[in-house]
Amino acid sequence: MAASIKDVAREASVSIATVSRVLNNVDVVNEDTKKRVLEAIKKLDYRPNIVARSLKTQKTKTIGIIIPDISNQIYPEIVRGAEDVANIYDYNIILCNTDLDPEKEMEYLRVLSEKMVDGAIYISNSLEDNIVKTIKTTNMPIVLIETHGRESEFPSVIIDNEKAAEDAVNYLIKKGNRRIAYIGADKDAVNASAIRYKGYVDSINKNGLNYDENLVYFCKYSLKADDGYDAMKAILQKTQDIDAVFCVSDDIAIGATNALRESGINVPKDVDMMGFNDTYLASAFYPKLTTIAQPLYDMGSVATRMLIKKINKEPLDKELFILPYELVERDSCK
Amino acid sequence: MAASIKDVAREASVSIATVSRVLNNVDVVNEDTKKRVLEAIKKLDYRPNIVARSLKTQKTKTIGIIIPDISNQIYPEIVRGAEDVANIYDYNIILCNTDLDPEKEMEYLRVLSEKMVDGAIYISNSLEDNIVKTIKTTNMPIVLIETHGRESEFPSVIIDNEKAAEDAVNYLIKKGNRRIAYIGADKDAVNASAIRYKGYVDSINKNGLNYDENLVYFCKYSLKADDGYDAMKAILQKTQDIDAVFCVSDDIAIGATNALRESGINVPKDVDMMGFNDTYLASAFYPKLTTIAQPLYDMGSVATRMLIKKINKEPLDKELFILPYELVERDSCK
Repeated sequence: MAASIKDVAREASVSIATVSRVLNNVDVVNEDTKKRVLEAIKKLDYRPNIVARSLKTQKTKTIGIIIPDISNQIYPEIVRGAEDVANIYDYNIILCNTDLDPEKEMEYLRVLSEKMVDGAIYISNSLEDNIVKTIKTTNMPIVLIETHGRESEFPSVIIDNEKAAEDAVNYLIKKGNRRIAYIGADKDAVNASAIRYKGYVDSINKNGLNYDENLVYFCKYSLKADDGYDAMKAILQKTQDIDAVFCVSDDIAIGATNALRESGINVPKDVDMMGFNDTYLASAFYPKLTTIAQPLYDMGSVATRMLIKKINKEPLDKELFILPYELVERDSCK
Repeated sequence: MAASIKDVAREASVSIATVSRVLNNVDVVNEDTKKRVLEAIKKLDYRPNIVARSLKTQKTKTIGIIIPDISNQIYPEIVRGAEDVANIYDYNIILCNTDLDPEKEMEYLRVLSEKMVDGAIYISNSLEDNIVKTIKTTNMPIVLIETHGRESEFPSVIIDNEKAAEDAVNYLIKKGNRRIAYIGADKDAVNASAIRYKGYVDSINKNGLNYDENLVYFCKYSLKADDGYDAMKAILQKTQDIDAVFCVSDDIAIGATNALRESGINVPKDVDMMGFNDTYLASAFYPKLTTIAQPLYDMGSVATRMLIKKINKEPLDKELFILPYELVERDSCK
């Protein structure tokens, strides 16, 4: 039978209250006594009932991570970063896939709150007002990753997507490209892809190039390789006069490269191709993609560190962490 | 202030015990009474304290999923399948990355047990004896996915890796290939890759071909594109007389294809290439990979359904589920 707190107290010749003080790390306990208690715990292989303790301390040492879809290339790295930091601080993570469905997001928030998670990492396209309201009702500490438009309301981790996109397009222009296509999503929504579109337009305008709507294509949100393939085919039907393509994800860039290849157009000989994210795909693909590297792992780990500070009511260094991005030159541009 | 169970009882004009019976779905409650209680719950937006209830029912409606690494291509699909089924049955999943480190596996088992998860899905290279012992001590229901050598001890979901590999190599032989290379991992360990190696050897022998050790390469376990690249380069240094390559993962096949391409050898014109898993990469890559499709999503969802049955002490249809695989023909073989 499993050892109880009583057994530990007996073994260490102390009171149950003393064992409890050692376990919960409250009040000062004489070092010798503490050592005796810890030895008794070890000897008896005593495991405190964490669930019972959670009720008392109102802490479950568990955090939620609410993401669109773990099978989408960018999230596994973020989640891994989050879990590694959670692990260091003895937290576990509950993974929630929402498919960006506001009803699912709402339901997960409710369940996580009922299960008394200590806080949550939240990644969404944009947060609807009623979801913001729900978060505030639950009183659960939340840190956002790449969830734009709500940075003033919750601690957030992002990169500067507008500047990153502008840098990417400036790079393509410096390479001598003039007719630069853009493949993205939802330009009217508030999300990372829409912000990258602004960066594209900024660069085109500042460099005195003509914005040509035939070169611009907005996919539905999934942003997978198939979407990039279809988008590129659609652009090619309107014009074949293309020097380069800037895509808001590596997957899109891969699909677009395959579509060009099918039309006998070579990347990078005929057209330069630029991705975004630097997922594992980018360096496995042929040609290896030149891309904007988002620090995905760091986004997960930094956000989790911030969340744990919030949970422990420690001050944050900043409420908005803008992490650095990097333009990684590989083989898809001349 | 949040409504309590007392408020619900008052609103529905029933006893607290009756509300509790409705909530926990135990004993028979008169349909009218039940309806009245449910209406009261809805009206007052009553949320039972799940943590307190967990202590009483010894159920947390939470399951663990112990995997090597979520950022490795095959696991996100499996985890997504698991979470979708968990969600249907109102369970949440706690994600644990072990990097195949037995100490981490042990630690997660301990923590999951302390947090009173109702059960766990376990994916490992192979289970060490002391881990099997720990699992049995915790009394936690466990279902294994692709964790070979322990199928007789725990309910398991696998594919027939030996047969799948044999089919893959038979396919390459039918295409007229004779000099077929193999890139895998750890032939002496008990894991899926080692079993696929047996299938390779079986096919070579049964078809009367010569086993040539110069054509065989064992990577370290990560099995990423870089490993495939290095493996192919190593094989090419020993022999350039290669008709086809059978790889134990799509990532390996992608790296191997890139290495061949660098040496001026074209896939599939000069060499046929076969992957394994059918991850998202396989169809995004150029050329699109011919591969053995593992039903990754189904493996996660079937295992989770089995686990929930075990948790509810329902009988399983079978203790060992062997899911079908499929050879998917794409563009990497002639």
